[in-house]
Amino acid sequence: MKIAIAGAGAMGSRFGLMLHQGGNDVTLIDGWKEHIETIRKHGLSANLNGQELTAQLKVELQSEVNLQNEMELIILFTKAMQLDKMLSDIQPMLSENTKVLCLLNGIGHEDIIEKYVPMKNIFIGNTMWTAGLEGPGRVKLFGDGSVELQNLGEGEEETAKEIAQVLTNSGLNAQYSDNIRYSIYRKACVNGTMNGLCTILDTNMAGLGETSPAHEMVAAIIKEFVSVAQYEGVELDLEEVVAHVESCFNPDTIGLHYPSMYQDLIKNHRMTEIDYINGAVSRKGRKYSIPTPYCDFLAQLIHSKEEILEAH
Amino acid sequence: MKIAIAGAGAMGSRFGLMLHQGGNDVTLIDGWKEHIETIRKHGLSANLNGQELTAQLKVELQSEVNLQNEMELIILFTKAMQLDKMLSDIQPMLSENTKVLCLLNGIGHEDIIEKYVPMKNIFIGNTMWTAGLEGPGRVKLFGDGSVELQNLGEGEEETAKEIAQVLTNSGLNAQYSDNIRYSIYRKACVNGTMNGLCTILDTNMAGLGETSPAHEMVAAIIKEFVSVAQYEGVELDLEEVVAHVESCFNPDTIGLHYPSMYQDLIKNHRMTEIDYINGAVSRKGRKYSIPTPYCDFLAQLIHSKEEILEAH
Repeated sequence: MKIAIAGAGAMGSRFGLMLHQGGNDVTLIDGWKEHIETIRKHGLSANLNGQELTAQLKVELQSEVNLQNEMELIILFTKAMQLDKMLSDIQPMLSENTKVLCLLNGIGHEDIIEKYVPMKNIFIGNTMWTAGLEGPGRVKLFGDGSVELQNLGEGEEETAKEIAQVLTNSGLNAQYSDNIRYSIYRKACVNGTMNGLCTILDTNMAGLGETSPAHEMVAAIIKEFVSVAQYEGVELDLEEVVAHVESCFNPDTIGLHYPSMYQDLIKNHRMTEIDYINGAVSRKGRKYSIPTPYCDFLAQLIHSKEEILEAH
Repeated sequence: MKIAIAGAGAMGSRFGLMLHQGGNDVTLIDGWKEHIETIRKHGLSANLNGQELTAQLKVELQSEVNLQNEMELIILFTKAMQLDKMLSDIQPMLSENTKVLCLLNGIGHEDIIEKYVPMKNIFIGNTMWTAGLEGPGRVKLFGDGSVELQNLGEGEEETAKEIAQVLTNSGLNAQYSDNIRYSIYRKACVNGTMNGLCTILDTNMAGLGETSPAHEMVAAIIKEFVSVAQYEGVELDLEEVVAHVESCFNPDTIGLHYPSMYQDLIKNHRMTEIDYINGAVSRKGRKYSIPTPYCDFLAQLIHSKEEILEAH
C-alpha cells in the first residue's frame, strides 16, 4: 500500500519503519529539515528492541510537498498544534480516495481534519505503542503495543477493518473498534491529568501520586472529561477511569516517568498540546454549557507557564 | 498600656517596637528561641527608615509562658497555621478583660480565636505596614502604613476606637472601620491570587501579569471570593477588586516582588498559609453551597507542592 506518515517524530517513525518492513511503499513527511535530510542521506536508523538497523524510507520535507503524489493512506502523527498546517501542506498527496487515519493524542482533531478530508475518508484511532526520538534520523523502539481505530464516516466499517489489517500485517497489532471515542476519551483522561499536573508541579507521576491532594485533583479533572464525553454519547465509568489513571502513580511500572508535556515544556521549553487535551474539554464544555473549571484553570496555568518559559 | 505581641516576626516586631517607643509596656512572644534569646540579651535591633536603633523590649519564649501575667491587649501576628497553638500557649496572659486584636493576613481566623477568647474581647483588623526580618533579633522597617480595625462583639465600637487610638499614639496610624470584613476580604483577594499563582508558576507578580491567561485566572479566583463574601454580607465590587489586584502586576511599583508565599515555599521550603486564604474560601464555599473550584484547585496544587518540596 502507498502510505504517507505525516509527522515523522518518534511514533511516526515507528509506524513508518514497521509498515516499510511489512512491504508497504512508505513516505515519511516532517517539518524538521535536519531529521528529513539525515534519513534521506543515511536512512532511518533505529534500535528496535535491542537490534540495530537502518531502513531506506522515502522522505519529504513538509514545506516541499509540491508535486501531485497521491497516497492510499495517510497516517497523521504530528503534534496537535501542527496538524492544521500539515494537512494544508500535504494537499498534493490527498485524492478523493485517500484514507486519513489520525492517531494523535488528545480529542477533537476531527474538527480540523474535516476541513481537508471528506468524512467518509476519515478514521480515528488510538495507539498504545511507544517510541523515542534520539536525534535526527534516529529512533529507539522498545516494547509492544496495539492500535484501535474506527471510521468516522457512516458505512465505512469495512474500510476501517481493512486499514487495521494493513497495520496488523506489519506487526502493529491493530483492531477495529466500534467505540473508538471511548478509548480516545479514556486515554485523554490519562494525558489530561498526568501531563498538566506533573508539568505544573514539576514532578513525575509517582511524585504526584504521593501527595495528599492528588486523588481529589485527578478525580475532579476526570469528572469534567466524563461529563463532556457523556454529552457526546460516550459513557465513561468515572471510578474505573480514575483507577486506570492512578495506576500511573505506581513507581514500579511507569510512575518514575515524566509525562511528555513535562519534557516538552519544562525540559525543552516547547509549546504543549494542552489545548487539545484539557483545552478541548473546556471548549466542548462551553459549547454544551457544562462547567469545566479544573480543565480551564489547568490549561490557563500551562499557557502562563509556556509564556513565562518563552516556549516556542 | 500592657501589651503582648503574640508572634514577633517582622510585622510583630515593628508593632512591638513602635508601641514600646510610644511608651507602652510591651512583651514580644515568639516560638523561635534564637530570636527571643537575642532580643533578651542584646535588645531588638532595627533599621527604622535608615536609622539604626536598639530597644530593650520584654520577651517571652512561647513555650515558656507559664506564670499568670495578664495583658490588657494582645496583638496576634503569628503565621495563620500557628495561631491555635499560640493562643493555647499564652492562656496565662488572658484575663476576662484582655482585648485580643488579630492582624493576620487571610480570613476566618475568628473561628480559632473564639475558642480561647469571648467574642466581646475580639477585634479584627488589617494592616498596610510592611516589615522585614533580617535575622534573629534584627528587623528592617521602611515606609509608611496604616491599620484598620473593628470589634467583633456587639456594642464594642468604643473599645475598638480606644485600641485604634493606642496604636495611633505610637505612630501606627490606626482607624476604626465600620466594615472591616470588606477590607479583609479585599486584601485577601490580593493574597488569594498573587500568592498562589506566583508560587505555582514560579514567577514574580509582573511575570504573572505579562502572561495572557493572568486576567482570566485572577478574575475567576476573585469571583469566588466575592460570592463567599456576599453570602457573609460583605459587598465587594468584582471589577474594582480585580483592578486593585492587577495593579500589583506593575513592574514600576511592586510587580518585581515575589509574594511571601513564594518566599516561604519555593525559597525556604516552608509550609504556606494557603488554608487561610484560598482554602478558607473553599471551606466557606462548602458551608454555603457555593462552588469554589479555582480556590479548591489552587489550594490543592499548593499543598501538593508543599509535599513535593518536603516543606516543614
